[in-house]
Amino acid sequence: MPGPFAGRTVDGLALDLRRAGTTSAELIELALEAIAGPGAELNAFVTVDAGGARAAARRADEELARGVDRGPLHGVPVGVKDLIDVAGLPITMGSRHFAGHLARADAACVTRLRAAGAVIVGTTTTHEFAYGPTGDVTATGPVRNPRDPARMTGGSSAGSAAAVAAGLVPLALGTDTGGSVRIPAALCGVAGFKPAYGAIPAGGVFPLARSFDHVGILAATPADCLLAYRCLTGRTGREADGRAARVGWLEAGGLSALDPHVVRQARAAARIQDVVPLPDTLAQGLREVYAAMHSGEAAAVHGDRMAAAPQLYEPETLQRLHAAVQMPGWRYVRAMDARAGLTAAAAALFEHHDVLALPTVPITAPPIGRREIEIDGSPSAVRAALLALTSPWNVLGLPALSLPAGTVAGLPAGLQLVCRPGDEDLLFA
Amino acid sequence: MPGPFAGRTVDGLALDLRRAGTTSAELIELALEAIAGPGAELNAFVTVDAGGARAAARRADEELARGVDRGPLHGVPVGVKDLIDVAGLPITMGSRHFAGHLARADAACVTRLRAAGAVIVGTTTTHEFAYGPTGDVTATGPVRNPRDPARMTGGSSAGSAAAVAAGLVPLALGTDTGGSVRIPAALCGVAGFKPAYGAIPAGGVFPLARSFDHVGILAATPADCLLAYRCLTGRTGREADGRAARVGWLEAGGLSALDPHVVRQARAAARIQDVVPLPDTLAQGLREVYAAMHSGEAAAVHGDRMAAAPQLYEPETLQRLHAAVQMPGWRYVRAMDARAGLTAAAAALFEHHDVLALPTVPITAPPIGRREIEIDGSPSAVRAALLALTSPWNVLGLPALSLPAGTVAGLPAGLQLVCRPGDEDLLFA
Repeated sequence: MPGPFAGRTVDGLALDLRRAGTTSAELIELALEAIAGPGAELNAFVTVDAGGARAAARRADEELARGVDRGPLHGVPVGVKDLIDVAGLPITMGSRHFAGHLARADAACVTRLRAAGAVIVGTTTTHEFAYGPTGDVTATGPVRNPRDPARMTGGSSAGSAAAVAAGLVPLALGTDTGGSVRIPAALCGVAGFKPAYGAIPAGGVFPLARSFDHVGILAATPADCLLAYRCLTGRTGREADGRAARVGWLEAGGLSALDPHVVRQARAAARIQDVVPLPDTLAQGLREVYAAMHSGEAAAVHGDRMAAAPQLYEPETLQRLHAAVQMPGWRYVRAMDARAGLTAAAAALFEHHDVLALPTVPITAPPIGRREIEIDGSPSAVRAALLALTSPWNVLGLPALSLPAGTVAGLPAGLQLVCRPGDEDLLFA
Repeated sequence: MPGPFAGRTVDGLALDLRRAGTTSAELIELALEAIAGPGAELNAFVTVDAGGARAAARRADEELARGVDRGPLHGVPVGVKDLIDVAGLPITMGSRHFAGHLARADAACVTRLRAAGAVIVGTTTTHEFAYGPTGDVTATGPVRNPRDPARMTGGSSAGSAAAVAAGLVPLALGTDTGGSVRIPAALCGVAGFKPAYGAIPAGGVFPLARSFDHVGILAATPADCLLAYRCLTGRTGREADGRAARVGWLEAGGLSALDPHVVRQARAAARIQDVVPLPDTLAQGLREVYAAMHSGEAAAVHGDRMAAAPQLYEPETLQRLHAAVQMPGWRYVRAMDARAGLTAAAAALFEHHDVLALPTVPITAPPIGRREIEIDGSPSAVRAALLALTSPWNVLGLPALSLPAGTVAGLPAGLQLVCRPGDEDLLFA
């Protein structure tokens, strides 16, 4: 099911809109048709705003016609994850708790999208409250992987990844608290970028765990992620100083069991000799801090809702929240302290390298609903495995990109690149 | 039992040391005799450092003799609470966990004391780990109130208050996380000042709940507290702008049941007409934030020790810690958020006033060991009542002074004055 934007880049679309007589109105019609038609079985979209998108496309075309050019996103169709507020649209957080809930104002990142001329075609399905990396637990049913509809997309930005992977839209916004942009990007075979903490403001985005919540970008290629990142942050590229990034391969075995085929595929894509060991204490510290702070902050968001209407949660979400509310406060306090120490310890990983490379996810997409899996002969929990290689960079707030690294038995594998804030250009280069 | 410093002020001693031929060596001998003699039954001191104090007094005298004058604390005997590190002395935190534990270095506030020429005569008894406002739970037995040895001093800076109240020393350091300087000051009839959060650095002080931990000062009079505060912080008084402080009487009934005799006594001492209401939501918010953050932070400090050697805690301390470790993380997260809102709401209390006045403690000193008491006809928990009027100012980090306000049935009552950081001079004026 190659949709209308399969094989097309935002950069290319921008050129077409200015030189080839393509109009935003045409692009929007292509997107709307594909979403409603062959793309519907993926369950990638929750709400399609055909009227709003057509009106915005018309305005975009008029502006371009009279020489008002808002940059490379001008006139480009975009999907927005269903927990990022878009004024006037129903934003449901993937949950029955917010069925029919209308957003009153645009989230800060949506304001920026619109200012850049992008056209929002609709909201993309999120794992319920973004509280899960599988993308198959939502009020409207599982999102399906375009490579194999029986398999999960990964999540929580499940619909955004599926929509881009299927070519329904060339670009989508997601959020990433433990890997929710990068995981589905990897499992669906697209690019996903989680910038540094706070780089894209989180105002108007429903929180999961505020210390780790990031807004991120999904697109077909890293170049498109970079382009959208610059449009959303106003950052311009640094002058190339002629230096190539020093890339090290991070030995991530301390974080999770790894499928050796996925590792081989990712490492082949990275073509790196240098190996950077990850100390066990650092790996363990990152896991513990993530778990403690995530639980405390998520439970703080959901406590009242759990008491008032527990039955409106999907069972798995409720079960996870029940565990989260038990997490004692002293562990949260210690995690805050430990995090400062981990940040210092992690700096050593970059002592001789600008960029660290590792797989995005240690496996390929499991079947929808699967929660236990065998990885390299060991029985493993699917959720923990999906998050294991991405969540450390949320704890540390570091920029991290997942890019397609070919396939293993026909299913996409992802290569993850991580850098320090300020080195984003080196990472993308 | 009026000790050698009863009725004498630091200011007066400073004059005597410079004009009346008094020596620091003499003052130290007076203190040592009183502590070992008639003062011993109070259990105010844990360790007396006779040798160290005599040597320091000799140096102080030599310096003064050759014209080196370190200011008003020069040569003055001081007691230091037994959880503030004094290099080379056993610092026990009032607990069997630290029996015989020697401090390796001076706490930051002790460094400042010594730089100001003060002579440390020994360590004063603390409620175990400062984790209690009664002062009667320590590894070395209860501290006794100089006004009535059958009654508690309040705590946790129990020994510091008893030592100053009995005239064993003219000045002592304490710590105050929920009222631990002001409560024993009030119950023993001396002055106690908790400066703004962070004004006196807490380095080298054993933590209780770090967000609320303050180092404070106990002395016979507010003037001596101010003098020591300036010596310890290097702050000098502001130019008097001729303006009298606008003082409002805070209606504190929303915080606790109040003994009307204590209220009358404190209010008579304050001589204020203006009444400032305390909104119920603010009172409740302050209580909840204090409880949640205090529990989480204290349990984070003690978790490992509880697991390793629970039997070394006094039973009441262990019981409180068992409750504290249960406090869920989401409550801590919410408390952090709520605290920011409370700070804004509390600012309104100062809209028309520079200083708020209220009783320090809603009761007079209960008998040692007592945990339930009747206040104005209502059965009340002693610990909660002792902390009720002081802990809000720890949550808000505001400067707060307790000063003697006469007696109720022969037992001291305290008047508390609270201001915003920067208005300390107005408060003391």
